[in-house]
Amino acid sequence: MQLETYAMERWRQGDPWGFIEISAPEVTYFDTGTPSRINGRESLRAEYQLREGKIFYDVMDFIDPRVQVCRNMAVLTYRFLSTKLRTDGAIESRIPWNCTEVFRYGEDGWRIIHTHWSYIHGMLPENQ
Amino acid sequence: MQLETYAMERWRQGDPWGFIEISAPEVTYFDTGTPSRINGRESLRAEYQLREGKIFYDVMDFIDPRVQVCRNMAVLTYRFLSTKLRTDGAIESRIPWNCTEVFRYGEDGWRIIHTHWSYIHGMLPENQ
Repeated sequence: MQLETYAMERWRQGDPWGFIEISAPEVTYFDTGTPSRINGRESLRAEYQLREGKIFYDVMDFIDPRVQVCRNMAVLTYRFLSTKLRTDGAIESRIPWNCTEVFRYGEDGWRIIHTHWSYIHGMLPENQ
Repeated sequence: MQLETYAMERWRQGDPWGFIEISAPEVTYFDTGTPSRINGRESLRAEYQLREGKIFYDVMDFIDPRVQVCRNMAVLTYRFLSTKLRTDGAIESRIPWNCTEVFRYGEDGWRIIHTHWSYIHGMLPENQ
């Protein structure tokens, strides 16, 4: 969870490389921005290069995180709100996500081998 | 994959219980129909009771399935098309999904401990 929070803090400031650092070479990846599964860290790096410096939001809420551990693997699941604020502090937009991260423990420590991001209820809220 | 295909064959005919049979007691579950994560097989059973006999489609396509195994856990990921046909055999509707299933191996065999379903590209195609 600490790894995830640290990487997410960088992500919300347009820096996707925190997630690359904690991903295994064999990582697989689903999210709402890609038409098919991304296979492998190098492919994920290429995808993130397109996003570097483009994603910014102000507030991150991790809701009800849960870790299921099974020896050297762990499944982390949570809901997540990415919120942008206006300059007066009011909410400009808020996107609700479901997130799954599967970690394995190896010589390089805990590393992500699978990520799945989706919108809660399968869609963006209106006006987002 | 065999477990998954068999359960899915029952699912497409309105019978969700195949998935319950291969789920672990501690299973967690995200999909597009639920506002938050479902925790535990009994909660999943209650959700599926609402769906029993309501979901039907004619053709199931598993696309590019991949299994990542790590000792006694495995991550199965694939894209999936659930297709309804008209009586003349033409396609009535087709929904594209991303699916993640995490299995663990225990005394009861391979069991699902986490499921995540989402729409590819984060939305339903138009007119579905």
